[in-house]
Order: sequence, then C-alpha cells, then structure tokens
Amino acid sequence: MKTIQMTAKTPDIHALLARRKPQYSLEAPFYTNPGIFELDMELIFGKHWIYVGPEPSVPEAGDYITVEIGRTSVLIVRDDDMQVRAFHNVCRHRGSRLCQEQKGVVGNLVCPYHQWTYNLQGALMFAEHMGEQFDVSQHKLKPVHLRNIGGLLFICLADNPPSDIDDMARAMEPYIAPHRMADCKIAKQIDIIEDCNWKLTMENNRECYHCRANHPELTISLYEYGFGYAPNPENCEGLEQYQQTVKRRHAEWEALGLPSNELEHLDDRITGFRTERLPLDRAGQSQTMNAEVACKKLLGDFDEAALGGLSFWTQPNSWHHFMSDHIVTFTVLPISAEKTMVRTTWLVHKDAVEGRDYNLDNLTAVWVATNAQDRALVEQSQQGIRSDAYEPGPYSPFTEMLVEKFCNWYVNRLSALVE
Amino acid sequence: MKTIQMTAKTPDIHALLARRKPQYSLEAPFYTNPGIFELDMELIFGKHWIYVGPEPSVPEAGDYITVEIGRTSVLIVRDDDMQVRAFHNVCRHRGSRLCQEQKGVVGNLVCPYHQWTYNLQGALMFAEHMGEQFDVSQHKLKPVHLRNIGGLLFICLADNPPSDIDDMARAMEPYIAPHRMADCKIAKQIDIIEDCNWKLTMENNRECYHCRANHPELTISLYEYGFGYAPNPENCEGLEQYQQTVKRRHAEWEALGLPSNELEHLDDRITGFRTERLPLDRAGQSQTMNAEVACKKLLGDFDEAALGGLSFWTQPNSWHHFMSDHIVTFTVLPISAEKTMVRTTWLVHKDAVEGRDYNLDNLTAVWVATNAQDRALVEQSQQGIRSDAYEPGPYSPFTEMLVEKFCNWYVNRLSALVE
Amino acid sequence: MKTIQMTAKTPDIHALLARRKPQYSLEAPFYTNPGIFELDMELIFGKHWIYVGPEPSVPEAGDYITVEIGRTSVLIVRDDDMQVRAFHNVCRHRGSRLCQEQKGVVGNLVCPYHQWTYNLQGALMFAEHMGEQFDVSQHKLKPVHLRNIGGLLFICLADNPPSDIDDMARAMEPYIAPHRMADCKIAKQIDIIEDCNWKLTMENNRECYHCRANHPELTISLYEYGFGYAPNPENCEGLEQYQQTVKRRHAEWEALGLPSNELEHLDDRITGFRTERLPLDRAGQSQTMNAEVACKKLLGDFDEAALGGLSFWTQPNSWHHFMSDHIVTFTVLPISAEKTMVRTTWLVHKDAVEGRDYNLDNLTAVWVATNAQDRALVEQSQQGIRSDAYEPGPYSPFTEMLVEKFCNWYVNRLSALVE
Repeated sequence: MKTIQMTAKTPDIHALLARRKPQYSLEAPFYTNPGIFELDMELIFGKHWIYVGPEPSVPEAGDYITVEIGRTSVLIVRDDDMQVRAFHNVCRHRGSRLCQEQKGVVGNLVCPYHQWTYNLQGALMFAEHMGEQFDVSQHKLKPVHLRNIGGLLFICLADNPPSDIDDMARAMEPYIAPHRMADCKIAKQIDIIEDCNWKLTMENNRECYHCRANHPELTISLYEYGFGYAPNPENCEGLEQYQQTVKRRHAEWEALGLPSNELEHLDDRITGFRTERLPLDRAGQSQTMNAEVACKKLLGDFDEAALGGLSFWTQPNSWHHFMSDHIVTFTVLPISAEKTMVRTTWLVHKDAVEGRDYNLDNLTAVWVATNAQDRALVEQSQQGIRSDAYEPGPYSPFTEMLVEKFCNWYVNRLSALVE
Repeated sequence: MKTIQMTAKTPDIHALLARRKPQYSLEAPFYTNPGIFELDMELIFGKHWIYVGPEPSVPEAGDYITVEIGRTSVLIVRDDDMQVRAFHNVCRHRGSRLCQEQKGVVGNLVCPYHQWTYNLQGALMFAEHMGEQFDVSQHKLKPVHLRNIGGLLFICLADNPPSDIDDMARAMEPYIAPHRMADCKIAKQIDIIEDCNWKLTMENNRECYHCRANHPELTISLYEYGFGYAPNPENCEGLEQYQQTVKRRHAEWEALGLPSNELEHLDDRITGFRTERLPLDRAGQSQTMNAEVACKKLLGDFDEAALGGLSFWTQPNSWHHFMSDHIVTFTVLPISAEKTMVRTTWLVHKDAVEGRDYNLDNLTAVWVATNAQDRALVEQSQQGIRSDAYEPGPYSPFTEMLVEKFCNWYVNRLSALVE
Repeated sequence: MKTIQMTAKTPDIHALLARRKPQYSLEAPFYTNPGIFELDMELIFGKHWIYVGPEPSVPEAGDYITVEIGRTSVLIVRDDDMQVRAFHNVCRHRGSRLCQEQKGVVGNLVCPYHQWTYNLQGALMFAEHMGEQFDVSQHKLKPVHLRNIGGLLFICLADNPPSDIDDMARAMEPYIAPHRMADCKIAKQIDIIEDCNWKLTMENNRECYHCRANHPELTISLYEYGFGYAPNPENCEGLEQYQQTVKRRHAEWEALGLPSNELEHLDDRITGFRTERLPLDRAGQSQTMNAEVACKKLLGDFDEAALGGLSFWTQPNSWHHFMSDHIVTFTVLPISAEKTMVRTTWLVHKDAVEGRDYNLDNLTAVWVATNAQDRALVEQSQQGIRSDAYEPGPYSPFTEMLVEKFCNWYVNRLSALVE
C-alpha cells in the first residue's frame, strides 16, 4: 500500500475520434485530458510544421532565439553564412540546455555546464577531458527542420516533415513577398499565458461570431461581415455592400501586383492554411484604433496605405496580418492540457524610427486589448468544459465554418497518426 | 520512449472498502489518493444532496450565486416568479461558463462568448446565426435538482436524487422554521481553503475531543460535555449537571414550540443527518465571546434570547447552528484530494442594522477564530496521514462516535455505488 | 466519460535498468518520471541509510528536529538520558503530525490535536477518553533506525536496515573523530530548493569538471586536480606537482594521527561511501575566500590549521567537508521528481564566539556562492533532459568516474530491490 495512485478510466482515443460529431464542438477530454495533451504534443506539434516566429527575430549572424514546444526547447540561430538554422537546445554531453535566454547573441554555442563548444552549424568543436577515443563527429547538435516562407519561420520536429510545405510556400510567397518581412524589425513582442487548452485558443481565432460583443477595438477596422454572418433583414444590405467592396478592392490590389483572392486549404491538406487580403473598414489602412497606419514608413515599396489586411492562417498554431505599414504575427505554443502561451509580434520597416514614424502604444493598442478579451473568453470556455455537464454543442453554419475546419483538420490528423 | 508516465500500483477500492476496520480512522488512500477523490466527487458529491448555501443568498428575482462542486459549476438563481432554481453553469453552445462571478444580478442569462440568451427558467430565448434548422428547445440549460429545507438550499447533481430528502425535510422543518431563515439576510460570508481532504474537515466537525485544548473562544459558550466525554472522578459531577440542564432546557423550549430533542440518522439513511437543540454555557444565548446575543434584533418571533443553539449536521458536507439572534451555516466543498473549501455564512434578521443592532466583528469572532484553529488541525492531520508510517488509529468510544458514524456513512455509500 | 484520465505508456523499469549503458548518463525517465520517483523514495530512500543532519542539531535533552523524506516526516529527539532517537512524526491516534516545526524543545511529545502524550522514548503516557479497553502499549510511536557516526546522524526507514553501516562506521570513525563533531555547534543552516531530480544534484556533486568555469569562489581553495583531469601538455606538470603534494601532506597528517588515504566504496557496497583528506590550495587551511581558517577557535585538539579538507561522500544523499576550523555538511532530500532540497550546515567549535572568533558571512561565503551556481547548473540540466531530444551522453573517463559510480550504485540497488 505504498505508492498507490489510483488512475481513473482511460478514454479510448480511437473511440473518441471515431464518434466525433461533425458541426459540433469536440468532447471534453480533447480539451482537458493530460494524456490527449501528450498525444497532441507528440502527433500534432511533433509531426507538423509549427510557426515559431518571424525571420527578423534573428537579423544578424550569431543572433539566436529559443522556442519552447512543450518540453522541447528549439534553438534558432543565424550562422556566419547568414543561414537560419534550428537545433535542439540540448547539449550532447549530459543534456543541459545550451541557451537559457529567450534571445541573445553568440559566437559559438558553449554549454554552461562543462563548456562543450559547438559552432553555429551545430558541429562539436571542443570537449575537454573526453580522451582519445572520443569522436566529436558523433556528438553534433541534433538538427531540427526549418523553412522560411516569406520571412515566417516554420520548424518541424519530425524526422520526415510533411512535404506539402512546398505547396504552401509556393502559394503564399507571392502574397507575402510585397510586405518584405526580411526588411522589417520587431517593434514589440508580448507573451501571454491563457489558462485553457491550445485548441480553444485556435478555435477562438477561427471565428468572429464573438467579435461584435467582445472586441470594440478590433471591430473599428475589421468588417463584421468578413467572417460570415447569417443573413437577416437587418444585415442583408450590409452583407451585399461588403461583397461589392471585396470585389472592387481585390481588383484594385491585384492591379498593384498584390494577390488578394482567398486560398482555402484548412482541412484538405496536411499543412493546412488559408489566406485572403481583406478590406478594412473606415480609413481602410491598418488594424489600429482609427484604422489609419500606425507607422508612417510603409513596408516594401508601398506608396498606397489602404491595402487592407492580408490575413494568413495556418494549422495548427498561427495567424498573421500583413498591412501596408506593419505586420502582426501570432504563434500559439501549448504548455499543458490547460495552459497555453500566445506570442504576439509587431513588426515595422527596419528603418522606421520609434517616436518619429510610429508610437508603440498606438501600434499595439488593438491587439493588446483584443488578446486580453480573447483570453477571458477562452478561459471561461475552459472552465465550463471541465464540468461533467458539458456536452459538444452545435457550430453556426454561417459564422463557425472555420472552427469546424480546424476541428476537422485536428481530428483527421490525429486519426491518421495515432497508433 | 516519448510520453512515458509510470503509474504506480492502483489501490483496489473494493478491497479498501471491505477491510475498513470499525472504530478506526480510514486508510491513507481515502485521504490522499486522486483516484479515490474522483470517486468521491462522482459518487458522494455527484449522487447525494449537497448543501450549497442559505436561501437569503438569492433574496430577489434575478439574484444568482454560483457554487463550484469540484469541476462542476452550479448556478442558483431566483426567477421572476420568485422560485429558486438550479442549473449547470455551462452554455449549450460551446460550453462557456455563463456566470463568472460568485454572485450577481441578471435579467436573462447571457453567455459572454456569443450572446446565447437564456431566461431564468433555463429556456434558450435567442441564439444568432444558428440558421433555420436550429431548435432552441433542444438547447435549454441543464437543470439541477434543488430542495429548500427551511431556507437551507440543497442540490443534487444526479438524475435520480435520493428520495429520503423528503424524510429529512419533514423532520427538520419544525426545528428550523421558528428561526425564519427566509426573513434573514447574509451579514458576512467567508471562504477559507484548507490543505486537506474534505473528509478530514468533516471528521473534525464531528467531535469535540479537540475543543478544550484548541478552541478557547468556542468553548466560552459550548458545553464541554455536549459531545461525549469519558466519565471520570473529576468530570462525573459536571456530566450529571449537564444532563440535568439539557433535560430542563428541552422541556422549557418545547413549551415555547421549539422542538429540541436529538434526531440522529447519521449512518442509517442515504440522506444522513442529526439535530439537537443544545444548551449553551454562561449567558446561554449565542456562540459569541460572552455567550450573549450578537444581534439585538432577534430572529422570527422570538422574545427570549436564551434558546441555546439548534445544531443540524448533514452528510456529507454541512453543519449549521441556529440561535435566537443569528444563524451560522457551513458548507464544505472539495477542490482536490488534498484541498477543501469551507464557506461560513453568518445570517441575522433582515431588518437588523449593522452598527446599531449588531457589530460584524463581534458576530463573527468565535467562528473566525475556531475555523482558523480547525484549519491548522486538519492540515497537520493531512501531513501526518501522507506518511507511509500512518496507519488507522482507534476512535474514542466516548467522544468520537459521530466521527465513526461519518466514516460508516461514507464507506457504506461508496460501497453501495462503486462499480 | 466522467473521471477519465488518459495515462500514457508506462516505462518498463526492468527494461530501463537492464539497458543502462555504462559510462553514459541515465535515460530521461530516471530524472523526470513520477513513477520512478516513487520507486526512488520507496527503494532508495526507504531502504538505505540516509544522512539527516549533524548531532549538534539536538545538543540538549528535549531538543528535536524534524526531517522530511518525501512524504515521511521523521522526528529526531534527544531523550532525557541524552540518547538520540528517531521516530515517525505521526500520532498513533488519527495520524496528525506531532511536531510541526523544523526544530524545537519539548518535555514530552504532545499531539496538538487531542493531546495524546508520548515520552521521549516514544511510549504513549496519556490518552484521554479512550476507555478501559484501550492498551497504551499498543500505541507507541513507531521507531526509526538511527546511527550516529562520528556525529553524523543516519536514519533508515526500513525494518531491516543494511548491516554494512557497521563497516562504514568502523572505517570512518577514525577519520572523523579528531574533528570532534559532538563538541561543535551549528553556526548556520540554509535550505535551498533546486528544480531538478535529486540524482542530478548528486551527480553534480560527484565531479569537478564543471568547477573551473562555474565556481570561482570554491576553486580558490580547491585544487583543480583533485577530481581527475585528462592529462595534456598544459596540465601535466600541475598534475604531477599535485600528486607530490598529496603524498607529502598525507604523510604529515598521518603522523599527526589523522587518517588521510582514500577509501573508495562508492559502488561495491550497499552503504556506499568514499573519503579522502585532500590538500587545499593557497593557505591550505579551509574552504574560504582566502583559504585561511574562518574560525580562530580550532576544532578538537588541533594546533595546526593547515589540515586540508577531509571529504566524506555517501550514497545516496550526502557529502561533508571537515577542516581544522569548521565543518560543512550537506544533505539532499528529494521533494518530487523534479524538485529537491539541499540543506547545508556549517559547524564550528561550540566555544567559538560569533563576531570574535568567526564571522558568519566569511564562514559561509564559499558554499553559499557555490550552491547558487550548482543550482543553476542542475536546473538547466533538468530542463534539457525533459526534451524528447535528450539522449544519454558519455561521461569523461577522467573527470566523471565518480558520477559513473553513483549511477552504478543507483542502478544496482534499484535492480536488486525492484519487484
């Protein structure tokens, strides 16, 4: 009777996946169960392309960032040939983390414990006291697959990453390229912790049914109609007008060399994504408190400020808004079954000067407020879903189709990979 | 070797229950094991009548409170017809909690996420964007059984609650009615968190063996002899006197229309309880620092202040003391295997005025002090019981019979319900 | 679908032990898995001799300390006949802890809950209200085995402790005795919590490969060469000189009656240990910031200050340095799979006067700094080992042989005891 630990019934993951009801939210264990969380980390975050941050996180040779994907720490570093590389942040000696900080600058990668020293290509250059027999070539840092798509860095922890990242890259680069991410700098980065499962964070991102009542700042520039509304006598005129606006704007933007049409592959591919350049309301320029640009120095070669917002959503963990003056990019990193980190990064042109070209509070106001509102919503959902009284509820066929596609993608991918 | 999590041996709950030694404390897993805690929540708190608070928590139409029973949040609300109702505090859409606060006032119940709107009878009145096919009648709030016994609110999460609540109601209402709970108001409510299993909190409540050395404030008014003492040469005179006092007082109080005799059904029924009107020491009026009333405005129609204390104990989670001037009521709500919330509520006549008729510090002094002392005791017990050296010890046949009855009830109920 | 809790794959402890690769660090579950932690507590800390503190922790009759070994609290008390005894700190009534504080003074041991009263030999002297049938002799405090080796207190929680403690005692007493621990007093005791598995704390203690880069204060007095270095052209002269110094010093110290030679039984016995009197650098007197004594009043009968440092390491949880002027002793007490307490105690002659003979900051400076540095190192290791990318890495055949012996001992002992 020593180390007793009664464990309750195990959910049958195959049964849970098989009985998933289309157009309904997932059953509670998907949001609360630590064992399913482990599966999510192993099969979703361990075997798909995960957005980790923008390229300007590591602008110079020797710059590094570390990103925590569950218990796994990934080191992303720009080497002396200016190539961005990713490694496991684990010394091959006794396993110490090499880099402790979230970002920094290094010449070589020196383990703080016993000074094993790796170069920025991951080769072990020096390890004292290991004797003649010791083969440094067998103790390189373990590499992690990395792809740079228009300045967005994606990594994959699997040995054989999904190859359809190529399709996404090919499709998305023309959309993103004009915003010239590589010529941007990070103006601000903020991490928040949400007390909920990562899927609630993602589902919340995939609908705007909740926007009108909860996001007064965001809906200054965001058109209510952009994310689907059930038509009714009061809104049918607005919906029609919105469709006309989209059509007109797309034509104008395409004429400027800016691909704008929707591409939607959220649940029909391994590396799922969606994009569209969406008009913004009022001044139509940027996601700010007056819908005008937050930064006078525009991105790339833009002369025109009213370029709407190019939105890009990826499965399983990111979304991004590219405007004429700044970019906002979001990465969702799960911590535990009921805790999730959301990292928001605001980027402006690297030559923009704070105080002159832009003001940080103005640049970040909308999404700081919106993130705080979303945090409250997803945490309230998590609390409700914990109750034994929770049962999956119906998604709106008008405003929650993209939530449905997120769940489809998730259930399909897990079903394909679980043993 | 990915998501390994070695789980230790599982205790056989049937074996643990079967070998329970009468007149001895329970084995350690009952107080420490997370799996047994889950059983407690499912079978004890999920299938019995649970005291959640006094009726004056929701005095007006639209008043609500929320009560957390483990992961389950229950919403108790007074509807526009003045009926008190209980619902699961979970939106039928995507599971968000409806009401976030511990108490508040509402017109309808509007989910903060997507504004699904329920009336105070739980009917879904409004849900935007759900389309023509959507049937609001299939998405009512899930009701929870509720009983109001003399102003004490009990809920049951089971579909088929134990029917012997009727017997308890029939027996108890004459005892409680004269104190007119419905004409009271909450003067103060304090929650404390105890780092122990909920059963240690209950067992501590069921004996006064620990009172003399630990509760100097409570024993001002509480007779040492009221909870059983082994007779010895020093105390036999006091015991005899006490028995005479009880007899005389009961006769006086019965003459005033106040039922006073002991009713004891702690371990012979599903809805176990005990009651008795007990004399108080010294001024004999109230559980205060001088045993005099804390509130000049007496309850109900009382003219006489020295009515002792009507005590009412229920399985599994409450106790209550009704005096001439105020009521103190306690609900025990488990949080985890080793964490428990105790909510204490002090009530006075609704027309009593703070500062004139009563002083809050004086009203609450005895139980604030006593709760803090009990918290230390039960936390020290929890720490000791965690040790592998702990083994069940013997209960006193004189002063711990009611602890024994609590354990009997618990073991019997769990044995009857566990699969 | 109520109390579901999906548990991931269980590691097969037998397979993990069987495939342990010599000269490599252990696999991750040994450092992270809660189930293996339970085995460590049951089989390593539950069945071996554990160092708990120095005898001057309880100098007078009635003095007690409590020591937490996982969930088990052990009470160590000096009785009225001046014998040091150990008991489980659990009342035989309902399991309350008897003594709450880490140290104190008592006449008898009175349980705070119901005043059951034990004498300092553990006999139950008094228990009210238990009736005629109650047999006090059946409710003694449960004793714990205790051995005092030269003033170092070891306890064993097993019924049948390893008998080879006798060999260690016989071997070590001549080494330790001249420092006269019984005539010392505790000058300072500091507990720190390290967020790592206890084995990382121990492994870190068993090598000095990390010292040069991390411990500037410790290496003032500690010879780099004392813990093994791979010979190379730069250090071969220093190594040779060091060997000569050891040889010369050992001869001098042995002539003074101080056994100095290495005894090494780290992995060839159940009660594993190692000792050696090691020369110190510079002034050669003490582990201080200038290698001079921190206390003018020398220990025992010493006239000579430059006695180096007698080091004594035990499996699984302690190390000690005895110098001419003071003693530093370390005990490692696991809290959870990833949390460990390190208690450091500095002792000086009981007649030394603070401010006159010694200054606390000077006495403790080296190890306060070194402990903080080691804490950072072991926590960084724990974080890295959590990653799925961690795999066991090679130990240096020159500087990590004692780490290897620790792992050997651990794996051998667990293999011998696990069912």
